[in-house]
Amino acid sequence: MTKTVLVGAGHLAFHFQNQLTKSKKFQLIQWYSRSIEKVTFSQKKLDITDQLYQLKEADLYLICVSDDAIASVSKKIETEGLVAHCAGGVPLDRLKGPSKKAVFYPLQTFTKGADLSFEQLPFCIETTAASDQKILQDLAEELGGTAHKIDSQKRAMIHLIAVFLNNFGNHLLHLGNDLAKKNNIPFEIFHPLIHETFAKALSNGPKNAQTGPALRHDQKTIDKHLSLLDDKDIKKLYIHLTYSIQKKHEQ
Amino acid sequence: MTKTVLVGAGHLAFHFQNQLTKSKKFQLIQWYSRSIEKVTFSQKKLDITDQLYQLKEADLYLICVSDDAIASVSKKIETEGLVAHCAGGVPLDRLKGPSKKAVFYPLQTFTKGADLSFEQLPFCIETTAASDQKILQDLAEELGGTAHKIDSQKRAMIHLIAVFLNNFGNHLLHLGNDLAKKNNIPFEIFHPLIHETFAKALSNGPKNAQTGPALRHDQKTIDKHLSLLDDKDIKKLYIHLTYSIQKKHEQ
Repeated sequence: MTKTVLVGAGHLAFHFQNQLTKSKKFQLIQWYSRSIEKVTFSQKKLDITDQLYQLKEADLYLICVSDDAIASVSKKIETEGLVAHCAGGVPLDRLKGPSKKAVFYPLQTFTKGADLSFEQLPFCIETTAASDQKILQDLAEELGGTAHKIDSQKRAMIHLIAVFLNNFGNHLLHLGNDLAKKNNIPFEIFHPLIHETFAKALSNGPKNAQTGPALRHDQKTIDKHLSLLDDKDIKKLYIHLTYSIQKKHEQ
Repeated sequence: MTKTVLVGAGHLAFHFQNQLTKSKKFQLIQWYSRSIEKVTFSQKKLDITDQLYQLKEADLYLICVSDDAIASVSKKIETEGLVAHCAGGVPLDRLKGPSKKAVFYPLQTFTKGADLSFEQLPFCIETTAASDQKILQDLAEELGGTAHKIDSQKRAMIHLIAVFLNNFGNHLLHLGNDLAKKNNIPFEIFHPLIHETFAKALSNGPKNAQTGPALRHDQKTIDKHLSLLDDKDIKKLYIHLTYSIQKKHEQ
């Protein structure tokens, strides 16, 4: 059994806790949170603490704190074990202290209150020493996911791409949802279109899947759409995205 | 049986043809295409023509030609029946001639070579005379879809929203796909993230689903991402979308 300590009590940490208590290969021996009341519900089963100096010796420390706290928290962990943070946008060397270091980044969006699954999820793994890879590969597989060896530079690019796909993609849905609300159009009528957009982009490739007024340089429709938008920033965004589509398809 | 004539031979027309030949309520009696070779494969079963003056008298004419051709094609159809175009971005009064007029707009993205389904698909229906609604409601249902009474003004807004959700959403996938290719990152590792993005936006609402550096005003990560983008237009688009997320969440 790989003795494991969980550091942090955000949404990701809760999900790790939930999965690891079921594991037969990884034994969750302790859970740290700065706010101990967040984790007290599991008191009877698991050792909990709000003091980093009280951390037990373990094989693996999974750090699931905010990006800004990774350096200060890791500095205080004294161990022979492996210390791994789980942040996509943070390089490995943000981890401080003398311990062995790693990154274990699940490529997914996590929100409080939303169900989530590690099933088939890619975990991006980086370690200082090659010999530390296996423990995190095993963890990825034990969680139901897939392991991918990715260095800090490539992970930064993956994180950037994830922003385009998730944050920006979700924002377009937000803008569409708001326009629908303002015009008394039930957003549900767009669900089949949204579903098809993603299904088609993934099966045919997004380049082949593109359609619409921007692609066919249909300036009459573009002008009509712009006349329907009263927010000047959203109007600018429409123009910018239209131009970007046209430019991309001329390349 | 509602006698129906199909006008045009694009992807949508082919799918209508495919569905209508199975129908027991709608009888496809003729198919027009300017380029007759496009529709000759069905010659034995169906009357085909490349001459508008040869159109047979029917209850319903479904016009599936390009937006720009709707006026000139409709002007030449002489009938007691109902003439309906299928374009989202085109108002009903673009139809010319003395016939009864309607719009029958399937809210979906259609691309050549991609499978498509009318199952559960919303059809936006508009007619000059209220008495003509029923024939198109029946058609929507016969095709497996749902009928929605939508006037030209509201349909223009729906078409605009569809551009945000589909064309612009697909473009973000295109940009992400290209960045992945350039950096030798297999795009498949983003599939669970893409799937979750849409699932979560639809179940929790896109406002609640938002996460990431823009939302938490994490300028350090934003600056890092901008340093990774070498195309100045894509850099501008990142800045614009980041600003738009921040503005939207302050409203």
